[in-house]
Amino acid sequence: MNRLVIKFGGSSVATIDKIKAVAKVIIDRKKDYEQIVVVVSAMGKTTNGLIQMANDLSAYPAEREMDMLLATGEMVSASLLSIYLQSIGEKSVALTGFQAGFETIGSHQVSKISNVITDRLIKELNDGKIVVVTGFQGMNENGDFTTLGRGGSDTSAVAIAAVLKARCEILTDVNGIYTVDPRIRKTAKKIDYISYQETMEMANLGAKVIEPRSVEMALRYDVPLFIGLNTGDLNGTNIIKEEDIVEQNIITNISNKNDVLLVKIFKKGSNEFGISEALKQLAQNDINIDMINRIVEENEVSYKITTNLVSKNKTKQVLDEMGLDCEFKENLSKVSIIGSAMRNQVGVAARAFDILSKESVPFYEVSTSEISISYLVDESKSNKLVNAFADEFNL
Amino acid sequence: MNRLVIKFGGSSVATIDKIKAVAKVIIDRKKDYEQIVVVVSAMGKTTNGLIQMANDLSAYPAEREMDMLLATGEMVSASLLSIYLQSIGEKSVALTGFQAGFETIGSHQVSKISNVITDRLIKELNDGKIVVVTGFQGMNENGDFTTLGRGGSDTSAVAIAAVLKARCEILTDVNGIYTVDPRIRKTAKKIDYISYQETMEMANLGAKVIEPRSVEMALRYDVPLFIGLNTGDLNGTNIIKEEDIVEQNIITNISNKNDVLLVKIFKKGSNEFGISEALKQLAQNDINIDMINRIVEENEVSYKITTNLVSKNKTKQVLDEMGLDCEFKENLSKVSIIGSAMRNQVGVAARAFDILSKESVPFYEVSTSEISISYLVDESKSNKLVNAFADEFNL
Repeated sequence: MNRLVIKFGGSSVATIDKIKAVAKVIIDRKKDYEQIVVVVSAMGKTTNGLIQMANDLSAYPAEREMDMLLATGEMVSASLLSIYLQSIGEKSVALTGFQAGFETIGSHQVSKISNVITDRLIKELNDGKIVVVTGFQGMNENGDFTTLGRGGSDTSAVAIAAVLKARCEILTDVNGIYTVDPRIRKTAKKIDYISYQETMEMANLGAKVIEPRSVEMALRYDVPLFIGLNTGDLNGTNIIKEEDIVEQNIITNISNKNDVLLVKIFKKGSNEFGISEALKQLAQNDINIDMINRIVEENEVSYKITTNLVSKNKTKQVLDEMGLDCEFKENLSKVSIIGSAMRNQVGVAARAFDILSKESVPFYEVSTSEISISYLVDESKSNKLVNAFADEFNL
Repeated sequence: MNRLVIKFGGSSVATIDKIKAVAKVIIDRKKDYEQIVVVVSAMGKTTNGLIQMANDLSAYPAEREMDMLLATGEMVSASLLSIYLQSIGEKSVALTGFQAGFETIGSHQVSKISNVITDRLIKELNDGKIVVVTGFQGMNENGDFTTLGRGGSDTSAVAIAAVLKARCEILTDVNGIYTVDPRIRKTAKKIDYISYQETMEMANLGAKVIEPRSVEMALRYDVPLFIGLNTGDLNGTNIIKEEDIVEQNIITNISNKNDVLLVKIFKKGSNEFGISEALKQLAQNDINIDMINRIVEENEVSYKITTNLVSKNKTKQVLDEMGLDCEFKENLSKVSIIGSAMRNQVGVAARAFDILSKESVPFYEVSTSEISISYLVDESKSNKLVNAFADEFNL
């Protein structure tokens, strides 16, 4: 069975006219696919509007009820799209996360998909319907609405593609993945083929084009993934297995992530404090920790971690409650160079450090993975550094 | 167990501040009741906004998807109210129609409650939580969202009160039921006690204060019903059994319903046409038929029915398709006098007809029930007639 899952983000279904436009794309795809599932996010800024109302009522809105609240956003866009498809003569049905079989585990707001029961999905597809599924949501064992975290609609789409053995297209307002963010570098080139691993690394390191969890899932279940324009243009980026990429650059991409917060954690007058307990508490409060370094200066032990600027107040609160001190440094960016071929190439790190020195860009932290090197630098210097790296590696 | 169900309509939860205000009322009621269920409608004009979007996409939006779309309105208000209750230290949980156990049968958009499975409701109440339930919705045997028709939140509230053996308060922006619409007659009096039957008759005949189905259900399951202000003021109207009302007027209420459409149905050149089939087709198209009269003039047979002005185009379409002719008369009102004591009183009809003649108000149709008489008159004359009736019967 020739199946396709298409995911449209919130900006692609933001208005009545945009809903009509994506319907055209869907119908056009029927030429090439026998069965189509469409996954949609909430219209435009709906989710932000719902969160704002909850925040106006409570400093810490109850998470179970937040999930019920946020689930409505996708229910609106999915039902409207299905209504339109039916009005122009297509057979269609809109399904919520739980109707589409999404069973989840874990905390509200950041639930994980444990299973997708495909009975209803397959029944509706076999009835010849275009199935429109609400992204980003599922139901837990209590029969309560859950959400998969921001960007979870990508994960919903890949999960359906995995269970249905379908191709998955993430259609959005950019026409694929670029070597460098085109807003920073006008001459950046679109990448036609990129590996799952590189895409994951990019997404983890700041590129907003796709949710890293969804790429990981695509890799695990061998889902052919495509990122392209919501006009349906097939000239986008294909995410495939590394071994299937014919011609490969050493460096595939330079990523940049702004609004990074550097947090120094210490305890005045003491070198012994439970850093692991602190990290655990931060994690339990949904504070996303990225880099971690242990620092010993003049016999004083401290730790430096990075997180998102939005987590500043919460971080301070958690550390205060544990009797720990902290200092913050804001206005930082994390600039990363990414490429699978780095594994087999020596000298990339040396070339990168050379650029930093030539460009006189100081860095506060550095971290590396098998296929990437990341530098924490002043936000004011990040664009300059991105372009210098791109020049060096011909991107 | 001392239980209370409170229903708040859309205008009572239309804004963040109004949600905070109704929370105060709920908490105040905790002094007198051990367990409280709150039923809410969608915020303000949310439902109308959702319908508008669907209509922008389709002349006849798919009903199953409409129900999924509209169900979101109450999910938003219920989750926000529960979030606020929890933020001020109350234990609370928000439940959708299906989580609260509402099983429905019948068509989408106009489903009927077949059962309320109380397991979860009672579990949450026994956990000490204020349970906030989305009104107006349930789930059918396919696991699809259904809605109970406009005003269905009243029915949701009474149904929960019936299964929990609770008192039911419908709190709104008017402080009870009046003898006459106060917008038409300033000196109209609030009714302290009124029978279920009279309230049903009023609701059926145009009073917008409560949904007739919900009153019928309250009567059937002996649910003590109260209509009052959303400020929690207990000086409202109690709807009770007729035999429990101590002092009774002959006439309790004068109702007025505008935007009535009179439809003459006939078939040129033929006196034989399937009126019952026509009525069936109209009903299947959700056209609400009120009065029906068979007319024989100069050997020509025709039928006159009344419906709502909004159904005009649909009515014409249905009759056209059946090869029937029709003529419309618009700008009509139905003025009704209602009172249980009419059963035992002769002469009410004579006094009413006398008023019509004195006031020179021509009528196009008249219909009667055991406890009411209704006249179809020009909309321009309806207020004058309402006041004349109110004078005659001391309301």
